[in-house]
Amino acid sequence: MWKAQILTLFPEMFPGPLGLSLAGKALEKGLWQCDVMQIRTFASGKHRNVDDTPSGGGSGMVMRADVLGRAIDATIDKRPAGLDDKEWPVLYLSPRGKKFDQKMANDFSVAKGITLICGRFEGVDQRVLESRNIQEVSLGDFVLSGGEIAALMLMDAVVRLIPGVIGDPETLCEESFTNGLLEYPHYTRPNIWEGREIPEILKSGNHGKIKEWRLRQSEELTKLKRPDLWAKYVPSGKNPRRQ
Amino acid sequence: MWKAQILTLFPEMFPGPLGLSLAGKALEKGLWQCDVMQIRTFASGKHRNVDDTPSGGGSGMVMRADVLGRAIDATIDKRPAGLDDKEWPVLYLSPRGKKFDQKMANDFSVAKGITLICGRFEGVDQRVLESRNIQEVSLGDFVLSGGEIAALMLMDAVVRLIPGVIGDPETLCEESFTNGLLEYPHYTRPNIWEGREIPEILKSGNHGKIKEWRLRQSEELTKLKRPDLWAKYVPSGKNPRRQ
Repeated sequence: MWKAQILTLFPEMFPGPLGLSLAGKALEKGLWQCDVMQIRTFASGKHRNVDDTPSGGGSGMVMRADVLGRAIDATIDKRPAGLDDKEWPVLYLSPRGKKFDQKMANDFSVAKGITLICGRFEGVDQRVLESRNIQEVSLGDFVLSGGEIAALMLMDAVVRLIPGVIGDPETLCEESFTNGLLEYPHYTRPNIWEGREIPEILKSGNHGKIKEWRLRQSEELTKLKRPDLWAKYVPSGKNPRRQ
Repeated sequence: MWKAQILTLFPEMFPGPLGLSLAGKALEKGLWQCDVMQIRTFASGKHRNVDDTPSGGGSGMVMRADVLGRAIDATIDKRPAGLDDKEWPVLYLSPRGKKFDQKMANDFSVAKGITLICGRFEGVDQRVLESRNIQEVSLGDFVLSGGEIAALMLMDAVVRLIPGVIGDPETLCEESFTNGLLEYPHYTRPNIWEGREIPEILKSGNHGKIKEWRLRQSEELTKLKRPDLWAKYVPSGKNPRRQ
């Protein structure tokens, strides 16, 4: 069973929103598992401090290498033995990391599991990241108050790809990024709403034409909104429409 | 007071993780507010259906324009009167949208509030997005099971920028993206950990040299990991180091 190990100072944030809806039902069915470790458990001393002031001065606090190092080692010890970093990646969520995308979500979903380290404060001591060969992953070019919500988001993207989680696997074939394009627009009843009609072609019953129209819509939308994706797009089929 | 209005089929997901830690304390202090509307309330009929099969066929379900349109109108009616889309943006979270980044987080934090529409299923009827002039915002190139966790993440990035939420506002000046660079590495005690030492310069007490070292680290890291950010970077100060 696919497992996520979470290292956090806020264990009560998990599974949180992933305990409901699609991911929550899958969790109940035992299609995945969420193991949460409190980093503070690995702190010593009366106050169980996990952070200290930054060397060289500056605002905020930094998570200590010794405490986090022990927490990571204990967590990694609980993984099945003999797995490499591809079969079970150890990730630190940070804006400095490699951008998370659908390909990464796919890779993580076919791994045996993942370990997610959620930082707080200013960040974590750099030495722990270097010594434990931790992969830094970023959810985007913005700063969060901690890694916890980023971890929830990453898990949501991954869990839905685990076989059995989504009832109809066809859904996964027709969505944004699967074919390198943004998804085409959707319509449903009522047929006329506030004077706006559903495009005629969608009511034609001609499945070939509908498929073609949707692909063209996806292409136009990607060209307009995401020239970066469009530049990488390789159309499949007989009539490449790329200009 | 800054307010987030959330339209969702899962109101129990809010404030969720934002009810704890930094954002949670700010919520308690009344520095921001989170109003959640259940979209289903605006559905009619015995079954209160909010979705229907996609026109033109295909897997999954699409959220209905009539139901969501009513929900959006009722929500927007609750905003203070006379605000434009910049003072109170109405956002739909979708992988087809404009990428959320720190600049957008800043813009949203100085707005009076935001309205966040969380989709589920395959997506929402395109006509509702067009008719209500809704801004599509994306958290990244991946697909989620719904917009809820994306909304939580966006709010986390925005709420911490609201004055008073972070105790020491200096923290906000020295983090990733504020100066167009990734943040420099952090260190804290112990001085030697597993044979790894804190860089000498950070223990020198020479604040000018430390500042310079940190800037150089930020520049090197950005150049190496994010050539896209590096290409846009304009160094400030007397000695531009760009090559």
